[in-house]
Amino acid sequence: MTVNRQWRLKKRPVGDVAPGDLELVSSPVPVPGPGQALVRNIYLSLDPTNRIWMSDMDQYMPPVEIGDVMRGGTIGVVEASNNPDLKPGDIVQPMDLGWQDYVVTAAAQKLVVTPQTPILAYMSALGMTGVTAYFGLLDIGKPKPGETVVVSAAAGAVGSIVGQIAKIKGCRVVGLAGSDDKCRWVVDDLGFDACINYRKENVLEALRRECPKGIDVYFENVGGEILDAVLTLINLEARIPLCGLISTYNADGPVPGPYMFRNVLMKRALIKGFIVIDYFPRIGEFMQDMPGWIASGKVKWRVDVEQGLENAPTALQKLFTGGNTGKLVVQISPEP
Amino acid sequence: MTVNRQWRLKKRPVGDVAPGDLELVSSPVPVPGPGQALVRNIYLSLDPTNRIWMSDMDQYMPPVEIGDVMRGGTIGVVEASNNPDLKPGDIVQPMDLGWQDYVVTAAAQKLVVTPQTPILAYMSALGMTGVTAYFGLLDIGKPKPGETVVVSAAAGAVGSIVGQIAKIKGCRVVGLAGSDDKCRWVVDDLGFDACINYRKENVLEALRRECPKGIDVYFENVGGEILDAVLTLINLEARIPLCGLISTYNADGPVPGPYMFRNVLMKRALIKGFIVIDYFPRIGEFMQDMPGWIASGKVKWRVDVEQGLENAPTALQKLFTGGNTGKLVVQISPEP
Repeated sequence: MTVNRQWRLKKRPVGDVAPGDLELVSSPVPVPGPGQALVRNIYLSLDPTNRIWMSDMDQYMPPVEIGDVMRGGTIGVVEASNNPDLKPGDIVQPMDLGWQDYVVTAAAQKLVVTPQTPILAYMSALGMTGVTAYFGLLDIGKPKPGETVVVSAAAGAVGSIVGQIAKIKGCRVVGLAGSDDKCRWVVDDLGFDACINYRKENVLEALRRECPKGIDVYFENVGGEILDAVLTLINLEARIPLCGLISTYNADGPVPGPYMFRNVLMKRALIKGFIVIDYFPRIGEFMQDMPGWIASGKVKWRVDVEQGLENAPTALQKLFTGGNTGKLVVQISPEP
Repeated sequence: MTVNRQWRLKKRPVGDVAPGDLELVSSPVPVPGPGQALVRNIYLSLDPTNRIWMSDMDQYMPPVEIGDVMRGGTIGVVEASNNPDLKPGDIVQPMDLGWQDYVVTAAAQKLVVTPQTPILAYMSALGMTGVTAYFGLLDIGKPKPGETVVVSAAAGAVGSIVGQIAKIKGCRVVGLAGSDDKCRWVVDDLGFDACINYRKENVLEALRRECPKGIDVYFENVGGEILDAVLTLINLEARIPLCGLISTYNADGPVPGPYMFRNVLMKRALIKGFIVIDYFPRIGEFMQDMPGWIASGKVKWRVDVEQGLENAPTALQKLFTGGNTGKLVVQISPEP
């Protein structure tokens, strides 16, 4: 390839991301300067937070500015380099994030690729997804053996890992997902104790049935009615790691908080928002546990790979319609 | 007196407590059995949580049952006793709580009454009110010198103490209260840096002005629009001790949670509900600090004393209309 295609933010979406909000622009492949490497992106991570970055709401990172390359995590291969630490052929995660074919970067994390830890594992359980699940559940949720842990978006990238870690910690784990297929995967393959199809069942009634001892930990990815149902059933001193609120990201007006908010008081519960970057200094803890869990089959992971950078905006919508199972990824170019 | 008047719950209030929800019933003064003492109640504590106890919503203690004596903390004097630990003349807090003239009890906490620590101090800064303020702010809010602490219901029983402790800890303290008189008291007498009359000003604009460095700790007593305004302005890793949600207690339908709930995620904030009884095991910490703060004038307290057990239901309404400044108390009988 001799051109570098980039998805640039053309205007801020109102509600769902629509055609024309992003624009695919071509420019020459960049040339690495001193200390820089040229990376050909192989995989692009699609995450609910992409939608936040497109908006100008008050958020945890600066929003993507109009005209800028859309922000997104990638894994790629070094093709040329003026940096002795980054050699051609290295598989890396560039620190410069973007929906594009190529990036020049002076800083990238090198990945150790093996048959047990293929490139795609780093897009899922071994990557940001896994780190998010690990620290959100263990550092904030603090699950104890015998407790009941509920996970929303249980068949999603983070939720699917959260539930498996909670099982490792000896908990009863109940997931919520949007289809019978997803629920089957979560229970039969991942070992959750139960999974509720929130599109078919009354969530409150189903949670009451599946959580006869109440809810001690709720790993929150979605917000909205599910949060309300959970708050109705939390036990004293429940912990709610707040990882995402995807049901609200496409709203174009104010969204009410949980109607059962008062139960945070009544049950002396804890809600704590967190972002994976807060835990980068503690990544060593994660690396002590997760590779072993993956190798032993205690943590399984799954990716949903869409083909072609040109399809990234369409693929992103799957996160909001529940179209993906496991971690959603776009393949931009072939693995070496 | 030869009769014991008791306020009994006749029916559960819908919205505001109305005449007829409680019923004043007279019965003979009870006779203490073996190990029991007869206590004549002097002061009755009125608290927002009384309204919760009258409802049958899911709550942190069992609701008061229809026909039962209304629950409420009292301080009284032992008049007769079959318990060697409780002597006639002792000033005590009976463990059996109730809106009534007399109580027989086998367990009561004896209070050390001095000119510096009069009986009423134990209804305010030295009592449950002070313990609530102390642990909610210090254990959950964890204020650091130079941080900005916002306190709602700043002229109320708990809020007025919270702000003074935050000043001791070196914070900028901004209160919210419902009248200019209350605001003057909070700033001029208690030493808050600022106080916003939320009935006169746009709360969001006023908070923006008074909290130029954002909000690090919000001690929450009220809920509703004030919580939304605060969430809009919180800093990263803000802490929100959730002590009360008085603006919602009289609602007769579902109340939406904060519209800015998403900022708990964006700012990685912490919300933690708590109840003073959780901290009883740690009361020693409180007793190491608070008596000295009171003696040195660093913590001032104020009580709003209504006369007559018969007026308790009417007096309670002051909490919901903003009629009281400081701790609201009903005097049932004279101090010895």
